[in-house]
Amino acid sequence: MSKKRPLILVTNDDGINAPGIRTLIEVMNTLGDVCVVAPDSPQSGMGHAITINDALYCNSIKVINGEPHTEHSCSGTPVDCVKIAVNEILKRKPDLCVSGINHGSNSSINVIYSGTMSAAVEAGTLGIPSIGFSLLDYSLEADFKPSKKFIKLITEQVLKNGLPKGVVLNVNIPKLDASEIKGIKVCRQANAHWEEKFDKRTNPLGRDYYWLTGEFVNEDKGEDTDEWALHNGFVSVVPVQFDLNAHHAMKELNTWDL
Amino acid sequence: MSKKRPLILVTNDDGINAPGIRTLIEVMNTLGDVCVVAPDSPQSGMGHAITINDALYCNSIKVINGEPHTEHSCSGTPVDCVKIAVNEILKRKPDLCVSGINHGSNSSINVIYSGTMSAAVEAGTLGIPSIGFSLLDYSLEADFKPSKKFIKLITEQVLKNGLPKGVVLNVNIPKLDASEIKGIKVCRQANAHWEEKFDKRTNPLGRDYYWLTGEFVNEDKGEDTDEWALHNGFVSVVPVQFDLNAHHAMKELNTWDL
Repeated sequence: MSKKRPLILVTNDDGINAPGIRTLIEVMNTLGDVCVVAPDSPQSGMGHAITINDALYCNSIKVINGEPHTEHSCSGTPVDCVKIAVNEILKRKPDLCVSGINHGSNSSINVIYSGTMSAAVEAGTLGIPSIGFSLLDYSLEADFKPSKKFIKLITEQVLKNGLPKGVVLNVNIPKLDASEIKGIKVCRQANAHWEEKFDKRTNPLGRDYYWLTGEFVNEDKGEDTDEWALHNGFVSVVPVQFDLNAHHAMKELNTWDL
Repeated sequence: MSKKRPLILVTNDDGINAPGIRTLIEVMNTLGDVCVVAPDSPQSGMGHAITINDALYCNSIKVINGEPHTEHSCSGTPVDCVKIAVNEILKRKPDLCVSGINHGSNSSINVIYSGTMSAAVEAGTLGIPSIGFSLLDYSLEADFKPSKKFIKLITEQVLKNGLPKGVVLNVNIPKLDASEIKGIKVCRQANAHWEEKFDKRTNPLGRDYYWLTGEFVNEDKGEDTDEWALHNGFVSVVPVQFDLNAHHAMKELNTWDL
């Protein structure tokens, strides 16, 4: 780690008042100079959405508990928060962006829908080393304390080693006491999917509406996956990339009659 | 193409009333049995967002011009439209999903923010061959007619050849007369980025707000890119994949002290 304290951008998708981000701020305050720019409302499932057709509001929040960091809430999505932090709020490009701690798993296919991970990916596209953290507990009463030492350890390693260009980390933490967590595993994401069910209801005016629900189905039994690690008491670390080119498909497409 | 008419799901992100989707429906009606499930309002820049904390409304729309397809508007995001189409509206899994025609480019990095392409990717995750179409003209007055023959040709090839597993197509069409378009090129996405600028204003109540604006900067001069093709009068076809595992980074991460 360089001798200068790193500048760390903290964001999330559960909103600036969610308990998870408080724990993340606490850990990051031990590692660098922290600036928080997070959504003013819950933004779960927002994926890589940006606000195009609306104005964004950004409020500087007075930090009252004497902690050294600064805080800003933003009316946009997690990706908006990263963009406005880097372009308007911060005086220089941050050395690190961390997102979370998400209330609930972002393992496997969930990355694609996750506002937490999309914020990390957005920072990655800007060349900022970046990590998304999630705890496998959706509850607002979740205990984030056991996560702290793992978050600190992984963040220290990223600050020390950097990350390969175009790679961000997706860290998921099992819902266990610190003493029960067996360690940290570098994994690939499990090849799992959601079997969606729409819960159909009728509103008081007689109009049908739907709630998206579903069951997470993992048919990938690989012991090198995040799902395996999490079910076996490990913190999972998945390196995530965002080169969407299907290079391997070019040759086949070039045989088509186009 | 099989003798049975294929079942084609049509969606977009500009909303069910946008002119672009009308052209797409027209072309698809010549190729198969069409079901339209599209957002009831503009959803540009929604990326892979899904609606978690809200109910979804879905309305069957009476098609009055005698065309054979069915239409449904949905209160959610483009990805919600695909999910509810496949799980609630369609009796069987569609043979193809097409999204667009988007009003404006989805070349290069834009894929990551694009509701049009995220709908195509969502269908891809469900194992449905899928194509996103965009015209490089943001105007609601855009002329979509020149796009028709290219959309038909590319769609026929996908119906005939299928697509490799885990690959969807991102098709962009230059804003030119049909006679000026030189042909179709299979490309990789240019390694370009947005230089964001936030336009800061003050509302009548004295509160500051921001509009996200920016400049698209392409430093990738490769002649194998979508940007090159589009600037040189070609329709670009980029195969897009959604395996977010950074397999190449595993080895390095495994050397860390975790």
